[in-house]
Amino acid sequence: MKAARYYGKENIQIKDDIPIPPCGDGQVLIEPAYVGICGTDLHEYMGGPNFSPTSPHPVTKESLPITIGHEFSGTIKKLGPGITHLKEGTKVAIQPTIYCGHCGACKVGAENACPNGGFVGLSGGGGGMSEAVVVPQEAVFPLPENVDLDIGALVEPLAVAWHAVDASPIAELNEPQCLVMGGGPIGLAVVQVLLGRGAKTVICAEVAAKRQEFAKAFGAHHVIDPSKVDVASSCLELCGGLNGPDIVFDCAGVPKSLEAACLSVRSRGTVVNVAIWEKEVPFNPNWLVFREASYKAVLGYQKKDFQGVVDALGAGKLEPHRMITSKIKMDKLVDDGYLALINEKDKHVKILVDVQGSL
Amino acid sequence: MKAARYYGKENIQIKDDIPIPPCGDGQVLIEPAYVGICGTDLHEYMGGPNFSPTSPHPVTKESLPITIGHEFSGTIKKLGPGITHLKEGTKVAIQPTIYCGHCGACKVGAENACPNGGFVGLSGGGGGMSEAVVVPQEAVFPLPENVDLDIGALVEPLAVAWHAVDASPIAELNEPQCLVMGGGPIGLAVVQVLLGRGAKTVICAEVAAKRQEFAKAFGAHHVIDPSKVDVASSCLELCGGLNGPDIVFDCAGVPKSLEAACLSVRSRGTVVNVAIWEKEVPFNPNWLVFREASYKAVLGYQKKDFQGVVDALGAGKLEPHRMITSKIKMDKLVDDGYLALINEKDKHVKILVDVQGSL
Repeated sequence: MKAARYYGKENIQIKDDIPIPPCGDGQVLIEPAYVGICGTDLHEYMGGPNFSPTSPHPVTKESLPITIGHEFSGTIKKLGPGITHLKEGTKVAIQPTIYCGHCGACKVGAENACPNGGFVGLSGGGGGMSEAVVVPQEAVFPLPENVDLDIGALVEPLAVAWHAVDASPIAELNEPQCLVMGGGPIGLAVVQVLLGRGAKTVICAEVAAKRQEFAKAFGAHHVIDPSKVDVASSCLELCGGLNGPDIVFDCAGVPKSLEAACLSVRSRGTVVNVAIWEKEVPFNPNWLVFREASYKAVLGYQKKDFQGVVDALGAGKLEPHRMITSKIKMDKLVDDGYLALINEKDKHVKILVDVQGSL
Repeated sequence: MKAARYYGKENIQIKDDIPIPPCGDGQVLIEPAYVGICGTDLHEYMGGPNFSPTSPHPVTKESLPITIGHEFSGTIKKLGPGITHLKEGTKVAIQPTIYCGHCGACKVGAENACPNGGFVGLSGGGGGMSEAVVVPQEAVFPLPENVDLDIGALVEPLAVAWHAVDASPIAELNEPQCLVMGGGPIGLAVVQVLLGRGAKTVICAEVAAKRQEFAKAFGAHHVIDPSKVDVASSCLELCGGLNGPDIVFDCAGVPKSLEAACLSVRSRGTVVNVAIWEKEVPFNPNWLVFREASYKAVLGYQKKDFQGVVDALGAGKLEPHRMITSKIKMDKLVDDGYLALINEKDKHVKILVDVQGSL
């Protein structure tokens, strides 16, 4: 079958001789429909392999080359023996988390932080950018009738945002006021999830003009430019003058966003870090101390987050179609996908690969 | 009356011509008994004024010189008009927090983080190192019969620890395992409060031999030396091998303790910062990200914490008498108090000034 494979830095190849994987007990064979390209894919392409296994992965036992694509939707083509709750032909989103099940993280219910874990499409186990992929039945989330397959490929990035918002104290707050640092794909997803979950005020801080427009289009109540205004005092004013935002989501992950997030949040507020960092950065714990604030780190998502997003999409509480800024064929994956996202970063939110249209 | 007054860096003077303050509506005149010297006092003496007001304090309206002593017990000598729930002659501990009541922090119930706030004995409003001090009735916590006045002066540092432990998720955990970074006065207070609140495992990480002995004497189950062992792997082993401590209290407040705290805590665990920091330090948010951990900053204490400590002392759940390593007269305050704590730091936990014995 056809599949896009990652071999290492700046080396992605489209192959057509990859065997269709067998579908065993409790497994489901998926025919991928749409696949999103995410920041991790770009990092692997530009400077990897960092995440992709160069020696056998502890769970998948695979190493490079691997089939890519971890943000994907598709259609159930075949059910392994013993599966009764799913039906062939159903359109689905795939929760690609891989975990070991026996480490400390898994034992406390944080399989998304499993040190032996990974993702289908990054760590072996096949990937969405192929004619077929086999996943465990637990990874399969049927989409509601009113949710199309292209939107299904957005469940994964929306689940990152859902997980971050769910980990925040939003449910305990009356009319929560929130700041989102960064208007990239994850920041915009957080904006949408916050609105879908009833935040009273959503401020997005973003320097790039095009991304500011996206943030407005996605419904942020206020969009501020941290290169032009002081984030903390602007937010204080936008939140009514007495206290800053209840919750700040750092989706930018740079030293300035860390400081601004900590100095903007209200007393007893929460900064949620949604970013992955490259190195140590300057931090003064007093930024949090003198407001008794908390800094909470989140990572990826869990099954509950996928279900939350799927349900919210079905109920019309999330309308993320504007996130799709381009749909491309698999053969143009590098030029129109990876390089477009690298070279025209601010123009795109999410580029989807149309797998069925590529065959 | 006699009072110890702070004039600025390395300038403390014992005066005997300070007027006895008037006791107005809702106020209580206290005859101080014992006063502890704390780290903030030392910082003010060595390098201040930082905290003490050089221009009129927004709440007390006072500026230097000010009467010192914010960790103190005493006896009620006089009740202002309208107070019926207190009795003259009662031995009490004083909660010295000063706050404005109308800022954002105060409005969300975090008056301990009031930016206009301060402390009796640091910000004006008199202090414990004097023959008499007038405080609002809300600041007065009667001591149980079985709690002596010297122990009453320890309620304040114990309340710092109580507040930190109370802000942690300890109440939600079954058999909580905890690490305390630093065996200074606050670290030792946290060890005691954790034991008093039923922690299953309390590990204290401390480099100084004398402080290691204190930690053992106060009942820490394990004492480790971070200059000799890797804190994270030692704690993992001491906690059973699968996960590190549920909660880590950073009472050391140095770059190494920050990193060790973050890398030791279990997945979904909580680091509670109890330290005040001097400057920015290197921090990698990924330390928390890959274990989905939280970093929670706390500051000082509130009335509920004072009540918690007083009740626990009454119930015999805290037995902090070993914290008192010396009792001195007010006339020897600098030599036997401040300088002893500065020059023989590891030998002492808490030095108390015996005010009544100094008159």
